[in-house]
Amino acid sequence: MLDVFDRCRLHDDVQPVTEMGAYPYYHPAEERLADGRVRVHGRVLVSVGSNDYLGLSADPRLKDAACRAVRSLGTGTSGSRMANGSLTLHETLEGRLATFLGQESAMVTPTGFLANLVLSALVGPRDTVLADQLIHASLIDAVRLARARLRRYRHNDLDRLEHLLRECDPAGGALILTEGMFSTTGTLCDLPGTAALARRHGVRLILDGAHDIGLIGPGGRGAAEHYGLGSAVDLHTLAFSKCFGTTGGAVAGPEQIILYLRHQARSMVYSAALSPASTAAALAALDIIEHEPERRHRALAAAARLRADLTGLGYETGDSPTTIIPVHVGDLVLCCRLWRELFDEGVFTTAMVPPAVPDGQALIRVSTTALHTDPQLDQVAAAFAAAGRRLGLIP
Amino acid sequence: MLDVFDRCRLHDDVQPVTEMGAYPYYHPAEERLADGRVRVHGRVLVSVGSNDYLGLSADPRLKDAACRAVRSLGTGTSGSRMANGSLTLHETLEGRLATFLGQESAMVTPTGFLANLVLSALVGPRDTVLADQLIHASLIDAVRLARARLRRYRHNDLDRLEHLLRECDPAGGALILTEGMFSTTGTLCDLPGTAALARRHGVRLILDGAHDIGLIGPGGRGAAEHYGLGSAVDLHTLAFSKCFGTTGGAVAGPEQIILYLRHQARSMVYSAALSPASTAAALAALDIIEHEPERRHRALAAAARLRADLTGLGYETGDSPTTIIPVHVGDLVLCCRLWRELFDEGVFTTAMVPPAVPDGQALIRVSTTALHTDPQLDQVAAAFAAAGRRLGLIP
Repeated sequence: MLDVFDRCRLHDDVQPVTEMGAYPYYHPAEERLADGRVRVHGRVLVSVGSNDYLGLSADPRLKDAACRAVRSLGTGTSGSRMANGSLTLHETLEGRLATFLGQESAMVTPTGFLANLVLSALVGPRDTVLADQLIHASLIDAVRLARARLRRYRHNDLDRLEHLLRECDPAGGALILTEGMFSTTGTLCDLPGTAALARRHGVRLILDGAHDIGLIGPGGRGAAEHYGLGSAVDLHTLAFSKCFGTTGGAVAGPEQIILYLRHQARSMVYSAALSPASTAAALAALDIIEHEPERRHRALAAAARLRADLTGLGYETGDSPTTIIPVHVGDLVLCCRLWRELFDEGVFTTAMVPPAVPDGQALIRVSTTALHTDPQLDQVAAAFAAAGRRLGLIP
Repeated sequence: MLDVFDRCRLHDDVQPVTEMGAYPYYHPAEERLADGRVRVHGRVLVSVGSNDYLGLSADPRLKDAACRAVRSLGTGTSGSRMANGSLTLHETLEGRLATFLGQESAMVTPTGFLANLVLSALVGPRDTVLADQLIHASLIDAVRLARARLRRYRHNDLDRLEHLLRECDPAGGALILTEGMFSTTGTLCDLPGTAALARRHGVRLILDGAHDIGLIGPGGRGAAEHYGLGSAVDLHTLAFSKCFGTTGGAVAGPEQIILYLRHQARSMVYSAALSPASTAAALAALDIIEHEPERRHRALAAAARLRADLTGLGYETGDSPTTIIPVHVGDLVLCCRLWRELFDEGVFTTAMVPPAVPDGQALIRVSTTALHTDPQLDQVAAAFAAAGRRLGLIP
């Protein structure tokens, strides 16, 4: 018999990148400062690698709420929500999220990945899921678990989506699965066009709001609110590890569907409940999202400023209107070297290399938060200028 | 096109059970008392439905550790471990877990469910996974995601396992996937026989230690230590939502394999990191597991006492040697009615009905913790006596 462990070998590119000191992953923060900076390998760095867009993970109000919940409810519930792990605190958060998103009902899940896996309970082998090419791995895994047919269309390519819709088996079901805001490109879903196609073809539209809910739209309700199309979204998934500054996730939609998922979604039924600390922190974050729009304005303004500087330097940064700025490099090794040069300049970024992006399309993912000050953003731009010139990436 | 939402209907049995006031799920705790009791619908109940076997979720040391971590590191890291969500605190816990389990390396995952999904990176469509029939849903989902061939053998049926091993395609890989301690039956894996078969057939043995690690074995290292077979386990998965009193999970094994999984396991790579609060709580729990064996002795003694009482009353409780006591009822409606009668007697239990158990094998899952006092256990036994007699389940 073949040994399954024998095949567990890393890509050939990890070793050379590591040998040149440019391995960009799993560098642990020793300390996270209140102003958003992090200490890594003894150095205090400006981080532009976080999804903490509103800067809430270090907010004293979230910390207070989390600690109060730990003191009164403990460090975990030691059980599935369904069996004995439910708290009234979970239900309070669920009610607030449903109201916030204009949906009938919501359910809180232990993580955002598990919120997306919940969708595997909605479709089966005879169904087709039409999905934007750039959807998150957890959404793809949900479709795989359901053994549904996955058909992907080029990012926001509505002509292709319509073509795929026409090809769907009318004897089966179909749904459109996309994201409000895409993690790698920073782009928004073309929701007006997508929602129109969903309506015209009579299929449900499911939107992953992991990155946009809290950040986008006049009230922070995500891309759907931005386009005035909240009622066109049949089901929303979300993650608390971005704008909500903690961990966990949720699914929001019609009451009957949420009730069904509470009983049938394996990632919900067979998972221990979200911890009291994270539940309380998410609730505190929702208060802030509802009452402090200036945080999302600042995060977006910081991105606009930094994007202009990076583009001005000669970098190719795509067309993101959000807090995410993809800095395109192309070559994997060069991308890791840029990551390392930026680290040496005092800036902590995220390198995205294959298979997270297509071959030859490696990039540095930069993201801004409400905590970034103008001097910090200037430091980031200066680092990109110095590092990029040393590597010959920019003039 | 068919509407996928139209199919989202609950089982026919939920409505009648709900109408008779016996719906046993999602009842939220308003309060969790330091002695392990819970307040549900305004009533303070003895809970025998938790997996908090060592009673650590309310331990002041875990609470202190969690709150310190929240104060210094925040309510979340807002990033994947791989990209920018790693903390030295995660690495400290990983080092301690590896040492504790006698493995070279470990990696911490956001939940136990996601720790098991990690295994999908180990096998592929040409491989066979031989699994005990009673393994957890998350392990089955890992095999499904990998599109490997899943062949299940009756619980601990080694003859059948050997038969299946002989049938494996020698051109593919194979591994045995089982659990140290099974959640529904409370039984341990027949590890001596299973490990001997794994060795004889040259296949890897993976053990989910969600329930036994912390509870079983002289040092609390689980079923493997209990049988003196720690070195026979190639890879361990675990969950912090049981003995560790918090949330999260881990995978422990050879360094090369863990390094591979850190880069290839989608539930690791594409998930936000475990929160500082839960990471610190798990670390504090490990200290207690290492230094206070009396907690597991008490939890197991409490189960032995309660099991004897329930068996003496005429209940069928299987042959569990652990903290889990399955009280077999059979009929789904009768099981839910017993759950409700016990609730009215002041005891909070877990009803397990199909599809979590086979049709006609509904049961009340009772579990004990280190916090249960003898008077509490007597109250539980008295409740089972009164409720069971009213329903005609016992003489």
